[in-house]
Amino acid sequence: MKTYHTLPIRIYTEDTDCYGIVYHSNYLNFAERARTEALRSIGGNLVSFQEKGMRLVIRSCVLNCLAPACLNDVLEVRTQFKKTGRVTLEVSQVIVREDQTIATLEVVLACINPLGKPTRLDAEFANILLTHFGES
Amino acid sequence: MKTYHTLPIRIYTEDTDCYGIVYHSNYLNFAERARTEALRSIGGNLVSFQEKGMRLVIRSCVLNCLAPACLNDVLEVRTQFKKTGRVTLEVSQVIVREDQTIATLEVVLACINPLGKPTRLDAEFANILLTHFGES
Amino acid sequence: MKTYHTLPIRIYTEDTDCYGIVYHSNYLNFAERARTEALRSIGGNLVSFQEKGMRLVIRSCVLNCLAPACLNDVLEVRTQFKKTGRVTLEVSQVIVREDQTIATLEVVLACINPLGKPTRLDAEFANILLTHFGES
Amino acid sequence: MKTYHTLPIRIYTEDTDCYGIVYHSNYLNFAERARTEALRSIGGNLVSFQEKGMRLVIRSCVLNCLAPACLNDVLEVRTQFKKTGRVTLEVSQVIVREDQTIATLEVVLACINPLGKPTRLDAEFANILLTHFGES
Repeated sequence: MKTYHTLPIRIYTEDTDCYGIVYHSNYLNFAERARTEALRSIGGNLVSFQEKGMRLVIRSCVLNCLAPACLNDVLEVRTQFKKTGRVTLEVSQVIVREDQTIATLEVVLACINPLGKPTRLDAEFANILLTHFGES
Repeated sequence: MKTYHTLPIRIYTEDTDCYGIVYHSNYLNFAERARTEALRSIGGNLVSFQEKGMRLVIRSCVLNCLAPACLNDVLEVRTQFKKTGRVTLEVSQVIVREDQTIATLEVVLACINPLGKPTRLDAEFANILLTHFGES
Repeated sequence: MKTYHTLPIRIYTEDTDCYGIVYHSNYLNFAERARTEALRSIGGNLVSFQEKGMRLVIRSCVLNCLAPACLNDVLEVRTQFKKTGRVTLEVSQVIVREDQTIATLEVVLACINPLGKPTRLDAEFANILLTHFGES
Repeated sequence: MKTYHTLPIRIYTEDTDCYGIVYHSNYLNFAERARTEALRSIGGNLVSFQEKGMRLVIRSCVLNCLAPACLNDVLEVRTQFKKTGRVTLEVSQVIVREDQTIATLEVVLACINPLGKPTRLDAEFANILLTHFGES
């Protein structure tokens, strides 16, 4: 059994390129919107994180593009939190259109302080994410 | 009495800049998302337009920025269609956060064919937009 | 006689949309790149501005789109500073491809402090911009 | 001995986010600008590719973010072509600021036709890329 957070994304003209498809770097933006909404759905948000001196930055991201998406499509971003370390959070994201996988992302986030140094991720928050949107 | 279409927009990290506010050109993107959703709400969409050989392009846009918006804000784009010509469509858009106006846009769209030449705007569609989301 | 700053801009896939042309909000980005380079060419830069507690924000922008631009085009942004007030700076920008005007922008910038309040524009800097890249 | 193509990239306000650093998805855009310029430097361009019925799309991309970049920085994108298959092209890209590595990308491109089907990559062109900007 799997649990994950879902966010629908409508494709607008701004997201497309001259080949008639979604420009690939937008998938990273869609994925961050989805992680942000997953966080919000459990009562967290990036501004309160910032107020506590934490921000989440991308340490690495593996993007696989499997099929093109087009203007007017509705995609769904499925976000699953995999595991947490002292400062890192690993996330698997799949972007689908109905039954077809459009793209997958494997993201490693790191928690840093305002000086840019790695800092301890709030363990309670990380556990709630894993409980709600983790593998089971 | 006024009628207009409304679209909520959440501000994500991608929308902000190093001054901590929404980067101004994003307001043009938000405005186009709102026009697209207004169109969809009356049964139209840009892909079916394209299939009929029409696309709407920006002829001009006046953007006024009145107050900054920030990460995590929820803005509302209010879209009102003002008048139509043979090939043009004039739209007033206001972006607000609760009671505060963040930005206003006055947009003139033109209908063009696949060769980029001005072409007659579908009058029936334009009238429906004005009826639903025009001044009254 | 006119003087202005010029910046060439190559059009990449990221700048285009599914209609095969440059997506309109990118012209605002290109225009800001050009203003930034005009500033740099006289020895200024946005980071040193920020260190002095000033930043330039867009108060208003009038964009006119006259002809489409496409992938691989080289555009030229011509930037002319028109006049300065105590806190504002007015700029006219024309984006051309060879002899053809692609877009024009009339931009009003305001100088603000870190609290977002209007603050006096550095008069010496503004005069140098007008001398180098103003009407004569 | 290594050979690679280099492209300088100036960081503008549009590239930054509210944490004061370059928003991560922009590195994918910078990387594509660099691949496009590497191609142009050997006499190729994406429009002539398109006219021959070919386009290069991203099949996968591994992004590692090692250090933040900021407003006004000048980055350098170093692009090295690694190997070609019948339809694929593998590219290693490193984004540096002076002696510091900001980000690395491992990109696999695929050549597709206007119907989106994989199509044979022009072998002559691929060999010229490898000769000029490949490992030696």
